Amino acid sequence: MLSVKEIAEALGAEWHGDGTLMVNGAAEPASARTDQLAVALTKGFQAQLGQGAAKVALLPTGVDWTQFALEAAIQAPRGRLAMAQLTATLAPNPVPPGVHPTAVLHPTAEISETAAIGAFVSIGAGASIGHGCQIAEGCRIGANVRLGQGCILHPNVVLGADGFSFVTATPAHVEVARTSMGQEAPPQMDDPTWHKIHSLGGVVIGDNVEIGANSTVDAGTIRPTQIGNGTKIDNLVQVGHNAVIGDHVLLCAQAGVAGSTVVGDRTVIGGKAGLADNITVGEDVVIGGGSVVLSNVPDGRVMLGYPAVKMTTHVESYKALRRLPRLLARLAGQKSGSQAPKD
Amino acid sequence: MLSVKEIAEALGAEWHGDGTLMVNGAAEPASARTDQLAVALTKGFQAQLGQGAAKVALLPTGVDWTQFALEAAIQAPRGRLAMAQLTATLAPNPVPPGVHPTAVLHPTAEISETAAIGAFVSIGAGASIGHGCQIAEGCRIGANVRLGQGCILHPNVVLGADGFSFVTATPAHVEVARTSMGQEAPPQMDDPTWHKIHSLGGVVIGDNVEIGANSTVDAGTIRPTQIGNGTKIDNLVQVGHNAVIGDHVLLCAQAGVAGSTVVGDRTVIGGKAGLADNITVGEDVVIGGGSVVLSNVPDGRVMLGYPAVKMTTHVESYKALRRLPRLLARLAGQKSGSQAPKD
Amino acid sequence: MLSVKEIAEALGAEWHGDGTLMVNGAAEPASARTDQLAVALTKGFQAQLGQGAAKVALLPTGVDWTQFALEAAIQAPRGRLAMAQLTATLAPNPVPPGVHPTAVLHPTAEISETAAIGAFVSIGAGASIGHGCQIAEGCRIGANVRLGQGCILHPNVVLGADGFSFVTATPAHVEVARTSMGQEAPPQMDDPTWHKIHSLGGVVIGDNVEIGANSTVDAGTIRPTQIGNGTKIDNLVQVGHNAVIGDHVLLCAQAGVAGSTVVGDRTVIGGKAGLADNITVGEDVVIGGGSVVLSNVPDGRVMLGYPAVKMTTHVESYKALRRLPRLLARLAGQKSGSQAPKD
Repeated sequence: MLSVKEIAEALGAEWHGDGTLMVNGAAEPASARTDQLAVALTKGFQAQLGQGAAKVALLPTGVDWTQFALEAAIQAPRGRLAMAQLTATLAPNPVPPGVHPTAVLHPTAEISETAAIGAFVSIGAGASIGHGCQIAEGCRIGANVRLGQGCILHPNVVLGADGFSFVTATPAHVEVARTSMGQEAPPQMDDPTWHKIHSLGGVVIGDNVEIGANSTVDAGTIRPTQIGNGTKIDNLVQVGHNAVIGDHVLLCAQAGVAGSTVVGDRTVIGGKAGLADNITVGEDVVIGGGSVVLSNVPDGRVMLGYPAVKMTTHVESYKALRRLPRLLARLAGQKSGSQAPKD
Repeated sequence: MLSVKEIAEALGAEWHGDGTLMVNGAAEPASARTDQLAVALTKGFQAQLGQGAAKVALLPTGVDWTQFALEAAIQAPRGRLAMAQLTATLAPNPVPPGVHPTAVLHPTAEISETAAIGAFVSIGAGASIGHGCQIAEGCRIGANVRLGQGCILHPNVVLGADGFSFVTATPAHVEVARTSMGQEAPPQMDDPTWHKIHSLGGVVIGDNVEIGANSTVDAGTIRPTQIGNGTKIDNLVQVGHNAVIGDHVLLCAQAGVAGSTVVGDRTVIGGKAGLADNITVGEDVVIGGGSVVLSNVPDGRVMLGYPAVKMTTHVESYKALRRLPRLLARLAGQKSGSQAPKD
Repeated sequence: MLSVKEIAEALGAEWHGDGTLMVNGAAEPASARTDQLAVALTKGFQAQLGQGAAKVALLPTGVDWTQFALEAAIQAPRGRLAMAQLTATLAPNPVPPGVHPTAVLHPTAEISETAAIGAFVSIGAGASIGHGCQIAEGCRIGANVRLGQGCILHPNVVLGADGFSFVTATPAHVEVARTSMGQEAPPQMDDPTWHKIHSLGGVVIGDNVEIGANSTVDAGTIRPTQIGNGTKIDNLVQVGHNAVIGDHVLLCAQAGVAGSTVVGDRTVIGGKAGLADNITVGEDVVIGGGSVVLSNVPDGRVMLGYPAVKMTTHVESYKALRRLPRLLARLAGQKSGSQAPKD
């Protein structure tokens, strides 16, 4: 239980009304109990304040809190930032440090005494886990994977499995197709066996990196796959071997970065987006959800589509495509000598 | 071993010929042994009946079973429904209730005595598992995740991990890009740190929900992420924080639903389809495989494409696009004064 | 530690200079230590040879090694093949045979004595694991899954979970939409319950198959899902029930193959590509990354797009689409009587 005043101070926010009101958790306005803080950062949620029982609400700065039947209000200029601070205040204590008795650690792995290692975790030879890391249940940390300080791995993450790197003795069709643009027939191959290029390079992960459930980061070939400081990775994301991901990057759910691709600092990769192998995506880039990037992207660009192009180009093409069926109908009319429809 | 008559009765189907024939499992016609039921619901499979050794077949209603060299036939009007009933009849007994000795359960978790909890499962504080649930090996059930009755979780499912919700102190490029349509340069940021909005809301899952291997459902922020009764989720699917999935929904493999999105009852989301965050998809909607939905969808709509539009609109644009190269060639001819090619 | 001569002989490659130089690992040229082999198969990496300390480099055949400040060189005609051989030479010894004490094996499972079974692996009834297989931590091998010889499963792979196969008592909207092309309204359904078609068929996997972390292969309905010899599957890939994948196929990360689809020998499916259910993709096909295949594909075809078409057709349409906005602007000008812009 915290008072309105205590929460506002933790948020660095202003407060109004009865600062001594005690608060026990947060809720959406319509379902908030009398002891909960109603989170009403949008007009839609503010309209629901009458439906719940909350006596205090979190509102944006500038809204007149006295129009609602409240006894107090906390007001913050940047709502989601206030949510980050509020939920941190209300979150249960982090997992206490220590290694769960079911975890299987290689004797050469170095685990910080302040790290928390969950049930059924396995950690391989030569791995290291930094100060304050939280490794949830079922994570698989392979040989020579190094995590910095304060990293959070959600359940069943796999770090440092072998990269997907295979080669045939003579050129395979997929190699020919890349250069011939699909024009050449498949080559005759005496031996279609895929020979494995082993992954000897491990993974190096910076500080304060968070990786979502069931995501995978493969080991590099002869140097480590790298993930920079402060980067956040969602669930079911794939990062291929030799990839170099910068600092403060976001990789949303089910995104994929293929082998040896470089992603610059502060770039945001939307959900389900894919980056081809061996390309460089600059800093401060935004890749829209579901887009597929096949070539280098300069700094600061906003990209959409398949293949991804500048957002403005994509929108222009897309709008033109929607007008195209009517155009074709009109041209068909002209060609046959009939009148163009009046449109 | 069941007789033809017993199987037909379990299926509510008609049978013909020797109802006393004993059957030990089902197979495709060409590989069926003499004691197996040949499943021949299509003309293709019926044509293979002569290649196998089955004495009895499952056929659609209305087919003349005597044209095949069979001693008996079971005939049902809706083939796949009959397959559901047949395979249920032949399936091995479900996992017996009980908790595998390797499972790690938080002392505050409530597990029904009729639930079956597999090896290496972990269940967090305040979680509850209803009557008859089957939780397969390696599933991770986080704090405050509630499952109703009769749910099936396939291996390595992760429920209730933290949502992917981060915010910077000042607006990041991805925020600017959404409003400026990619026209503005990245903002100067003194501090690119992503602050985490913690997930305090847990997950609530209804009755008879099935979730496929390695799928993930994140916890909500201040209210639970919800999945309705009878909904079925395939492998490698992501459901984001605060999402509300209705009853009897299908989410096919590798689909993704981003945070705070609502999906109505009986809607079917195809494989690899993605739904953006904070949108509402209505009831009885069908989203084609690989489509990306970026805005609200009304009830009953069939959607395709990137971004997803009405299926008819998508097909029209797509056909026009295929005709476009020829059109451009013709117009280039007109423009240069040459004759339009006769096409 | 191996000598230059020993490595060259293991690679079947030529060597020059001091064959007695001892090598301890490989590295990229700029970061190579004096005892490491610098891998410099491209001009870019060759330009970095001066920045590191390596005395010996791996170079392509035909490059004049004496132009670099090296004491020896190994030269191979096909660089990535040499990398396969080199990394195999340098790789740590494979996991020793044996079953980790934490693994949970069904008493009816047959495990080769030469197989290596990692921590927290579970293996179901009637499963069999062939000679020399390596099953990494947390893999889930279901009932009646059979692996041939020399297979490698990376962590948290799930084989043999139930297929995603459900049917309603009367036709659902998704069935109607397929035949009506989205033109018909959702049918009235008295009962929207999805009835499960159980998966009784297991999985059969050939020899020398490798499957990446967190990938899933579902059990077949009444016959096994099949994966052929020498096929390699990347991370987070889904293979649906009844699928038949040929020999020496590559399935790149996050690809998906829906139920009952057939993939021919030596076909390569790019990252994030999806194959619809019940289609046949031929031999030696290449499906570009992110493409979605909705219908059969003949042998040898290179396919791109959504829906996937011949690469040449896709590129032609794509180029035309990029020219379309300008065309529309020109036609709008003609229509209004103004001059067409000179472009």
